Amino acid sequence: MGKTRVGIVGYGNLGRGVETALKHSPDQELVAVFTRRDPHKLELAYSGVPVVSLDDIGDWKGKIDVLILAGGSATDLPVQGPELALHFNTVDSFDTHPDIPVYYDRVNAAAREGHHVALMSVGWDPGMFSINRVYAQSILPTGDTQTFWGKGVSQGHSDAIRRIPGVANGVQYTVPIESAVAAARSGQGATLTTRQKHLREAFVVAEPGADKAAIETAIETMPKYFADYDTTVHFISEDELHRNHKGMPHGGFVVHSSESSPGIKHTIEYRLNLDSNPEFTGAVLAAYARAAHRMFEAGERGARTVLDVAPALLSPKSNADLRAELL
Amino acid sequence: MGKTRVGIVGYGNLGRGVETALKHSPDQELVAVFTRRDPHKLELAYSGVPVVSLDDIGDWKGKIDVLILAGGSATDLPVQGPELALHFNTVDSFDTHPDIPVYYDRVNAAAREGHHVALMSVGWDPGMFSINRVYAQSILPTGDTQTFWGKGVSQGHSDAIRRIPGVANGVQYTVPIESAVAAARSGQGATLTTRQKHLREAFVVAEPGADKAAIETAIETMPKYFADYDTTVHFISEDELHRNHKGMPHGGFVVHSSESSPGIKHTIEYRLNLDSNPEFTGAVLAAYARAAHRMFEAGERGARTVLDVAPALLSPKSNADLRAELL
Repeated sequence: MGKTRVGIVGYGNLGRGVETALKHSPDQELVAVFTRRDPHKLELAYSGVPVVSLDDIGDWKGKIDVLILAGGSATDLPVQGPELALHFNTVDSFDTHPDIPVYYDRVNAAAREGHHVALMSVGWDPGMFSINRVYAQSILPTGDTQTFWGKGVSQGHSDAIRRIPGVANGVQYTVPIESAVAAARSGQGATLTTRQKHLREAFVVAEPGADKAAIETAIETMPKYFADYDTTVHFISEDELHRNHKGMPHGGFVVHSSESSPGIKHTIEYRLNLDSNPEFTGAVLAAYARAAHRMFEAGERGARTVLDVAPALLSPKSNADLRAELL
Repeated sequence: MGKTRVGIVGYGNLGRGVETALKHSPDQELVAVFTRRDPHKLELAYSGVPVVSLDDIGDWKGKIDVLILAGGSATDLPVQGPELALHFNTVDSFDTHPDIPVYYDRVNAAAREGHHVALMSVGWDPGMFSINRVYAQSILPTGDTQTFWGKGVSQGHSDAIRRIPGVANGVQYTVPIESAVAAARSGQGATLTTRQKHLREAFVVAEPGADKAAIETAIETMPKYFADYDTTVHFISEDELHRNHKGMPHGGFVVHSSESSPGIKHTIEYRLNLDSNPEFTGAVLAAYARAAHRMFEAGERGARTVLDVAPALLSPKSNADLRAELL
């Protein structure tokens, strides 16, 4: 098998993260970036590869082993996922948890019809966190698993704040609450409420003359996003926002606590501390593109998730080297 | 596929750990325990299944889907692993890291000849820690991975202490050193020496009239086991040993620290805190016995390791349920 020829669909933060990850990959090469924007106006950060209009992606059949779909789960992937799985092997980071079963069925049907592999919901949650939930509950079926997110920037919540009238800019951090983390580690996590597990911290730039009290109330009472949480709102200047809050750090952890027999406790914890959410997610996508290519070459067809991929398929090393060096 | 019929070979601490784990398993049943001891003298902790002399294991061909080999890596598994893989699907916890490639070749040859699956080196290190080393390095190929063990009881080091003349009993704890953990998290782990990463703490019961200074020197200077570490020796009474040190706790963690681009740091950490090393290892073996049976049913033959097993194969849940509930 030669180098895996990879294409990236979508060149936002995540697409750039994938491009960055591929620089470190010895056995993959980026061959093209596809965009819905005007390709002539798009400048790539690292690569000298062609930037191609998404309308022309059909010309690239047979020239690409795996397409990494770096679009969003709200509107991009529900369309692109099934469409592109008809013609290419794909890897995507579809992350709307409740819609996964429906999305799986649609992508699976397309990938089977097109005789391709479509690896979906790749990233860290869903993704590495899902893997760790499954490992932990398979090994210790009793007990309780809790997932904590943060401290990190939630793009969805930041967007929600920026849509409030009078808000010029804003960033929202999700923060796990230490007492809840301690409860989860000691096996008492199942009784925790949403409010007890995480708090939310908003840094908001108000427009000149805006009613700050009204903004604060609008944030704190926003259904789904903030109403179920204790939220702190800080008004800051645009300067301060750019100085202190322009990164996209995130992370979190999965804790499983269980007793294998009465009084014999075990805790399994998987923890991520990420300076850049899109660069890490891009790196996960790049590793799973290697696996998707191998699974396709081995004759697999249809939709798959991270739960269906053996760890060795992700590594550029041979199985013999993995056994000798890392087992 | 009905319930997986499991046999246990060897009924020491690990064999009992497997028996305990199988109690929690909805889709597996223990059908027999095999021993080299007199089977009439062996009483099982939980199960009413037959205890059978290992000499008669041939009578059980066709009545067992997977044999879990709960013997030791020094003398039991090098013989039993290849012998039993000829006649059964097997899962073992072979953990002598440097001998893994040779053991793999021998077990692989036997399993292929006998048309079985032999899942080897299953446990937490090798095992869950290996998986995490591979995931981390596949996602973030640059950077540094460090493994820490403890705080926990090392059976090998405890045995070594108990063999010293004048020692009536003893327990040894391996303890990670906090400054080294901090260095590993910040990506400075590669320069750490053996002495900088872990210390060793020994609790020793001396025989009446024994030369304690000589025992202490014998421990601290013992090549391979203690000479490369800072070791503290505490002399205690047999009573205190039984009161405070009769458990078999262990654990540890794998830390991978990497930059995806200059200045953008990520840390991945997988951590186990185990009250009972054999009960947790037994639980891992039981979960992988499920996978071994499924891989055999799917037509796989030969030796495999945890790196070859997709997470979903470990779970009693269906793939659709896993996608809906845990992805």
